[in-house]
Amino acid sequence: MSNTKVLPLVEPETAVEPCCPPLAERPFSAEEAERTAKMFKALGDPVRLRLFSAVAAHADGEACVCDISDVGVSQPTVSHHLKKLKEAGLLSSERRGTWVYYRVEPSVVAAMGRLLTAAAG
Amino acid sequence: MSNTKVLPLVEPETAVEPCCPPLAERPFSAEEAERTAKMFKALGDPVRLRLFSAVAAHADGEACVCDISDVGVSQPTVSHHLKKLKEAGLLSSERRGTWVYYRVEPSVVAAMGRLLTAAAG
Repeated sequence: MSNTKVLPLVEPETAVEPCCPPLAERPFSAEEAERTAKMFKALGDPVRLRLFSAVAAHADGEACVCDISDVGVSQPTVSHHLKKLKEAGLLSSERRGTWVYYRVEPSVVAAMGRLLTAAAG
Repeated sequence: MSNTKVLPLVEPETAVEPCCPPLAERPFSAEEAERTAKMFKALGDPVRLRLFSAVAAHADGEACVCDISDVGVSQPTVSHHLKKLKEAGLLSSERRGTWVYYRVEPSVVAAMGRLLTAAAG
């Protein structure tokens, strides 16, 4: 068994664009609902929502796992949830030294906010 | 086995108040995350999101199952999802004659929107 791995030089980016008209403009198509539901689902878990809030509220708007491990789950679990939030497009990440730093992806989160605010119209 | 049931005269209301500070103000507590994640989870399913959008976009901002059954699932499934959205506080409902009419609960949806918009800073 070998521990040697070739690390990719560039991390593949999961392109999640802010999508779709306000929820009240017209009924979402199946495709629009599929894309957008993923983002809401990412925030539909209490631990993920706490972590997302912890990143958003952290100094300079970014945090590493080392900063936000006080939510009562293990560090690997924290990393797992942060990865899910990143896959949903809500966080971006950057590795610096030992740690990966996460920050809120403002355009995506703002677009989600607008979907809802307009639906409350 | 008896089929007789005493129906409650008043339907119990699931009180879901718009909760919690903007996501970026400070890390959510476990209790805040628990409450808020339920609302996001309700929109984290593509069929529910389409139905929510269909209600929000319908004439006069309200719709019954009879109005929005074109999302490719059975009418009982539509009813089930609308009930979930109601339980999460995102829709309110009123029975008129044969049908239950659903409408978006603006204060709750607006509060969710604000949580996100503020996190996008």
